[in-house]
Amino acid sequence: MFLDRLKNLKSYKTETTPCKVKLSSNENPYQLPEWLKEKIAEEVKKIPFNRYPDPSSAELKEAVADFYSVKPENLVLGNGSDELIQLLTTVIGEPDRPVMYPVPTFPMYQVSADITGRPKVEFPLDKEFRLSKKEIDIALEKKPRLAFFASPNNPTGNTLDRELIIYTAENNVFTAVDEAYIDFSDKKDFVDEALSSDRIVVLRTMSKIGLAGIRLGVLIAREDVAQEIDKARPPFNITYPTQVIGKIVLTEGREEIKAQINRIISERKRIMDSLKKIKRIKVYPSDANFFLIKVPDGNKVHKLLIEEGVLVRNMSHLPKMENCLRVSVGKPEENDIFINALKKVIEKL
Amino acid sequence: MFLDRLKNLKSYKTETTPCKVKLSSNENPYQLPEWLKEKIAEEVKKIPFNRYPDPSSAELKEAVADFYSVKPENLVLGNGSDELIQLLTTVIGEPDRPVMYPVPTFPMYQVSADITGRPKVEFPLDKEFRLSKKEIDIALEKKPRLAFFASPNNPTGNTLDRELIIYTAENNVFTAVDEAYIDFSDKKDFVDEALSSDRIVVLRTMSKIGLAGIRLGVLIAREDVAQEIDKARPPFNITYPTQVIGKIVLTEGREEIKAQINRIISERKRIMDSLKKIKRIKVYPSDANFFLIKVPDGNKVHKLLIEEGVLVRNMSHLPKMENCLRVSVGKPEENDIFINALKKVIEKL
Repeated sequence: MFLDRLKNLKSYKTETTPCKVKLSSNENPYQLPEWLKEKIAEEVKKIPFNRYPDPSSAELKEAVADFYSVKPENLVLGNGSDELIQLLTTVIGEPDRPVMYPVPTFPMYQVSADITGRPKVEFPLDKEFRLSKKEIDIALEKKPRLAFFASPNNPTGNTLDRELIIYTAENNVFTAVDEAYIDFSDKKDFVDEALSSDRIVVLRTMSKIGLAGIRLGVLIAREDVAQEIDKARPPFNITYPTQVIGKIVLTEGREEIKAQINRIISERKRIMDSLKKIKRIKVYPSDANFFLIKVPDGNKVHKLLIEEGVLVRNMSHLPKMENCLRVSVGKPEENDIFINALKKVIEKL
Repeated sequence: MFLDRLKNLKSYKTETTPCKVKLSSNENPYQLPEWLKEKIAEEVKKIPFNRYPDPSSAELKEAVADFYSVKPENLVLGNGSDELIQLLTTVIGEPDRPVMYPVPTFPMYQVSADITGRPKVEFPLDKEFRLSKKEIDIALEKKPRLAFFASPNNPTGNTLDRELIIYTAENNVFTAVDEAYIDFSDKKDFVDEALSSDRIVVLRTMSKIGLAGIRLGVLIAREDVAQEIDKARPPFNITYPTQVIGKIVLTEGREEIKAQINRIISERKRIMDSLKKIKRIKVYPSDANFFLIKVPDGNKVHKLLIEEGVLVRNMSHLPKMENCLRVSVGKPEENDIFINALKKVIEKL
């Protein structure tokens, strides 16, 4: 009864080995402050759980729009950006026309294409994980209708060339720029393009800036584009608690979130500076809340780090990612544990 | 850039005219008791919102499995059953083979087929809203691969003929029995069939029994079937608050939920008995937390009820539903307001 494509589906699985220090999921390591949690508990208590949530998430949308300096009409909200990626893959372009994206990248583009049965055009980033016009041109020959560019890219951490992203969109490809990590970057975002173009949209998420638990993804687009995509959104996809909690944190907790982001950015610099002093390690540049390192033996280092109580994400199994580990920026004390553990492990090799 | 099918998509919209008495969405009218809300607030405060929720929802699944007397391995959890309906429509049977369902019924089967581009075979219920073998046989000629049967059916309230549902499954059709309203019925459910068959699954939801706000749908299936469907589920589709709140309510609040269900069932009898005394009204039998009535002029009665502060769902625009209104069972005082308003409105006509 099941589709053949389901049999071969590699669903998106994350590593969940419990470790003292978890630097594997690119989460914000800081909890919300106690006063904000008190406020959340107070407001959650008032929720009429027996009622459906507002299908338009009007109050939450106001808060999100204000946070991103756009209008509520420019937004589509998703149960995480995962849902928005799947939505775009389902409704943009004829189903027999491919989805294109560079590799290595966030696995949900591939998973969504596989689940919906869309053909995929995966094209390689270069050795420094940059887009190349030559590879994009080859991909465009397959006549894709939808493109995903994660920028800053996951798991590589670097920002992709904006001219080549725009070039792709100009070649008749609906282009989603997934800016999940842009809060940690000083590069220009694609919001202006999204607000003015009929084929560029931006994806954002609350998952990297402190709210992974409530699952809130955001699509930013020109009003008419947002409206059209919103038609295919499940009517009650944003739960009542998420609407309430998201609103509180994005309004009353905004300064706290911004302060946490700044702490993560300065910790990123500190860790990367330390790691550069360790021999036999390559540290890649990062505009995100994580960074990529290349070590002498990825699988072994990953395993030995777990023994030291530190979980990072092993990327060694991916093409072009041999011996690469992805490390999320944690709290200062967690980062120190990681740095010392890595030094010890590398010396042992 | 958008699919043509999106242009014509009628997305699922609900009526949201604010009214004093809301009997339009088949919600449980009772709030959770104060002590349970206290407990929820306490546990929500402990959530590490910065962390992703458990992708397998293990603790919540334990509670749901216990609630339905099945094993956790028999379950797939969805962000409402809406997500599960869309998931089945996406991964069951070849995409060019139709989805079949009787009409009138819950609109999400149609919406999901339209969004995913699946052909639809809609076949009519008879005058008393029953399944007929003749119509099923005609539908089967179109070689559908997936069937949805809401039983008790929405918006009609009656339970569908189980032999004909099984007959459909036996004709090589993967069959989802949507038992969203079964908690209010004394008819036999399809859980035994789901646990033993490779092509029958049951859908349940927490939305009708007091937890519409947290969006929690449940698919019950044989272990291997559940596992296969679960592969296509987005990895973090159940938010952290929903996992925490769902678990508390289904364990510590279980007796309360059961008591509320019993109150709704006895209120349903009381209202329907009252309505039967009103001339010019037909009241249809119901196994759900709502019932259908036929009035002299559906649009007008609907409008006049709103003026009296009572919102019910107008079904008049649907085929076979001329002048029909769907009324959710409310609290006793709400039901009294509705009964009196209806009497007044009908007299005025």
